[in-house]
Amino acid sequence: MLWSGWGDPAKARDLPESVLGLLRDLLGVREPARAAAGLADVRLAPGRLPERITRALAAVVGQPHVQTGHEARVRHARGKSTPDLLRLRAGDGSGAPDAVVLPGSAAEVEAVLRLCATERVAVVPFGGGTSVVGGLTTASHDLAGGLTEVPHDLAGGLTEVPHDLAGGLSASAHDLVGGLSAASHDLVGTIALDLARLDRLVEVDTESMTAVFEPGVRAPEAERLLAEHGLTLGHFPQSFEYATLGGFAAARSSGQASAGYGRFDDMVVGLTLATPEGTLDLGRAPRSAAGPDLRQLVLGSEGALGVITSLRLRVRRAPTTQVYEGWRLPGFAEGRAALRELAQRGLLPAVLRLSDETETMIGLARPESIGSGDTGCLAITGYDDGTLSRRQAVADVLTGHGGTPLGEEPGRAWEHGRFSAPYLRDALLAAGATVETLETAGFWSNLPRLYDAVRLSLLGSLGSPLVMCHVSHVYETGACLYFTVVTAQHGDPVEQWERAKESVNAAIVEAGGTISHHHGVGRDHRDAYAAEIGPLGVEILRAVKGRLDPAGIMNPGALVP
Amino acid sequence: MLWSGWGDPAKARDLPESVLGLLRDLLGVREPARAAAGLADVRLAPGRLPERITRALAAVVGQPHVQTGHEARVRHARGKSTPDLLRLRAGDGSGAPDAVVLPGSAAEVEAVLRLCATERVAVVPFGGGTSVVGGLTTASHDLAGGLTEVPHDLAGGLTEVPHDLAGGLSASAHDLVGGLSAASHDLVGTIALDLARLDRLVEVDTESMTAVFEPGVRAPEAERLLAEHGLTLGHFPQSFEYATLGGFAAARSSGQASAGYGRFDDMVVGLTLATPEGTLDLGRAPRSAAGPDLRQLVLGSEGALGVITSLRLRVRRAPTTQVYEGWRLPGFAEGRAALRELAQRGLLPAVLRLSDETETMIGLARPESIGSGDTGCLAITGYDDGTLSRRQAVADVLTGHGGTPLGEEPGRAWEHGRFSAPYLRDALLAAGATVETLETAGFWSNLPRLYDAVRLSLLGSLGSPLVMCHVSHVYETGACLYFTVVTAQHGDPVEQWERAKESVNAAIVEAGGTISHHHGVGRDHRDAYAAEIGPLGVEILRAVKGRLDPAGIMNPGALVP
Repeated sequence: MLWSGWGDPAKARDLPESVLGLLRDLLGVREPARAAAGLADVRLAPGRLPERITRALAAVVGQPHVQTGHEARVRHARGKSTPDLLRLRAGDGSGAPDAVVLPGSAAEVEAVLRLCATERVAVVPFGGGTSVVGGLTTASHDLAGGLTEVPHDLAGGLTEVPHDLAGGLSASAHDLVGGLSAASHDLVGTIALDLARLDRLVEVDTESMTAVFEPGVRAPEAERLLAEHGLTLGHFPQSFEYATLGGFAAARSSGQASAGYGRFDDMVVGLTLATPEGTLDLGRAPRSAAGPDLRQLVLGSEGALGVITSLRLRVRRAPTTQVYEGWRLPGFAEGRAALRELAQRGLLPAVLRLSDETETMIGLARPESIGSGDTGCLAITGYDDGTLSRRQAVADVLTGHGGTPLGEEPGRAWEHGRFSAPYLRDALLAAGATVETLETAGFWSNLPRLYDAVRLSLLGSLGSPLVMCHVSHVYETGACLYFTVVTAQHGDPVEQWERAKESVNAAIVEAGGTISHHHGVGRDHRDAYAAEIGPLGVEILRAVKGRLDPAGIMNPGALVP
Repeated sequence: MLWSGWGDPAKARDLPESVLGLLRDLLGVREPARAAAGLADVRLAPGRLPERITRALAAVVGQPHVQTGHEARVRHARGKSTPDLLRLRAGDGSGAPDAVVLPGSAAEVEAVLRLCATERVAVVPFGGGTSVVGGLTTASHDLAGGLTEVPHDLAGGLTEVPHDLAGGLSASAHDLVGGLSAASHDLVGTIALDLARLDRLVEVDTESMTAVFEPGVRAPEAERLLAEHGLTLGHFPQSFEYATLGGFAAARSSGQASAGYGRFDDMVVGLTLATPEGTLDLGRAPRSAAGPDLRQLVLGSEGALGVITSLRLRVRRAPTTQVYEGWRLPGFAEGRAALRELAQRGLLPAVLRLSDETETMIGLARPESIGSGDTGCLAITGYDDGTLSRRQAVADVLTGHGGTPLGEEPGRAWEHGRFSAPYLRDALLAAGATVETLETAGFWSNLPRLYDAVRLSLLGSLGSPLVMCHVSHVYETGACLYFTVVTAQHGDPVEQWERAKESVNAAIVEAGGTISHHHGVGRDHRDAYAAEIGPLGVEILRAVKGRLDPAGIMNPGALVP
């Protein structure tokens, strides 16, 4: 993985001159004044971990698996959001861990967590390193964040406890547990807990069609291991080439074939979570009425409650046939209506996506053919063994909404380029354009409002950016809107984007959407997430975190406001 | 609803002499020595609520909506498990609330919860009153349960807090919140919070295919209200005629058409939970990656965290066609293999169930034709508009596993009798037989072990009962096993069943199944549930309850161990 960008450096491509011209003429993009930093140039704060602690960590995982060198720290400093890459390209290594620790088993994970809780070392679980929402960075301000208020809260809670005990015990727990969660102010350092060595397929049950994996298995390797048994997960997000199964679960990933295979959280039937307070082992049946589904509390917990050390996943027979095709819909509204009818009539292909007019025109849905787009809106449908029988019925619905078939070529082009967009981003960043994606989801009747709110916000805060959108995942009651933004850089590009992001987050919350459909919360969505679930929702998360991670070492600053 | 049994008393039926003969000859059932008690004969403890509190409750909900009379208390004393009915038939009114309160709005629910938290009154939410797992009873031992240990825990927690604050804050929250949760020892009384007046369909969104309901709407009324819009929920559990939507959500119900329409928790896309500490409002999109899915923490919470005051549910077009048919499979193993293939190949009808050899022989799958069963195993398949196209493919799979079609008559008979079994139970209880149901779920490869474990446990603890089973709900990775037990009464029938139940609960946990697929936890499954989710799972629930319900007033004794 390119340390300051995406993927295999050998696959990096320059933009053709025609595209550079478009960026200059349409968006006013100018080449950056400074060249990107090299890895060796990245500025890091000195490591803070006392030698005593690194020795103790090495005693758990083995000396070679505790890395404190420059390269290891830089490579684990951040995820792959555009601000992450812009910072790294500028040589800013803030947020880098003091050490990278690679446990070799679930038992070693548990031991590292106990040690770090005792020693007050923050732990940032690291899978594929592909977070685009600030899920992987422990910025120093997170560690210091609670400092000024904590003594006050704690004192307040303590003064009131005896009173509350007499009077009904109602209020004291809040202040006290609040104080506990915020206790991360005295953390002595941070490790990235890289799960790359937990890379085994543990068990395949072809009768139940489940497979048990360790969390550090990368998605292509998982597919390779399953293919030996004639099986597949069917989970193909854009991060597929690098992301891990544990990361998919921790961030509630959703893949490009979600219409046929469901979200990743639909695939998880069992899991194990190691926490500083012990291990949670859940999932004795596909579904249960035995209380709340606590698996759903772990899915999406983003390392803030513990480390997923095992996953039992639903698998399917690997398909023998795959067909992708393109459709032209007259407009985004007509296209949404068609997708809605397909979802509500149970006629979903395995892959179903619809670009808006702008994205269709720019052709970013087909990264290798920018500028060649048709008018109208491009839809892609993809079928495999389990969905191929619906192909004619889907065609009838699309035709009924004014759709015209474009044949298999646009489908093949989409399939060919489906994991390429992050490479394209690197080229755009190098050319001086900021490009970033963001997404939301809502009920069908609210999608027009959400679409307008996001576009208006981005246009308002970025001047005249290019804003493209596609519907990437559909459900009976609603869908996901996925936006791509390209803008010329003005001033500090990180500040420029962060201002725009703050504004668009607020617009999404205001328009009634969820702050993320599949990217997650991390640090970048934390405040909007708090607004979405409300004060009592935040209190629930804090209570759970306070119980599983009383020292506040687990991914501090991520998810839990 | 019959106060000591099921349903409309006008629909009650006596058992034919042939069945009585079978019960006598096969099971040794003898008529009970005592006739069942009348409602007026039920023994109740005097109401404990101070007049001041009932006046305050009346100020919130209106005088007519606070009921303290004998009949109201008896009718809210228990749910509809067999031990519940046996106790009521014996005139045992233990567990009755001191008052029944009927709020008229979500705001009134919130006000009642605040009042009850301040006054330390336990609140048992009451929907259709159909719990079969002890979800509705506040037995006095629940209230007194924590008494001896609480002062010790609290003292322990307090003594250690200053120490922990200095040393790392790691352990104190446990003891203290543990103490808080257990504080229900000083509750002054119990109300049943009957949600019957929250009976409105609030909103229909035919674009998003969602409908917002208040929680007290009974299922038939929900279907009637939706039918005016050409819509349906498609949720038909055996409790359909009386259960409420709020109860379905609180207990993670699953209906007879779950193969086609999913579980009730699949239908909930949004909800509002009133708690003593405020209101939680969740669900801005069908699915989200914004953190853990907190909706899944409310679904299955059984009134122990708060009261569901609003539900946004996925709805579907009401079907215009419904077809049910019967199949004979050579044996239960062959039938399970056929169901598994259907689930894993995406070929599910709307209704799919398979009786084992015993249930098929006894014909309890068709309550009106006891004794007329064929050999082999009876399967029922049901189709409507959305699934009818699969009929031939399903038939091919069933045939491939040795199935022979029995035509539509057995299907119609099943449909006709689908809500009748609880009436039959009343007749069996009157005849001196104990009849009860229980259920579990597991992964396909574990079902034979679960099946044997449950049967062996019941045979061991009940002598020679009749144990029947059917697969009632299927998934790609596993299925639900639903058991019906009929036994002669020996000694105290409640004690007799509770011993058997304790043993079979332990057998399910030991054999790796979940303690409930759709009945819930209540009080009857609480200890087995704790074993299923483990100590850390229990701690999570306690932490959440401690935050939302610090006074421990919400359905004390249910769900949370």
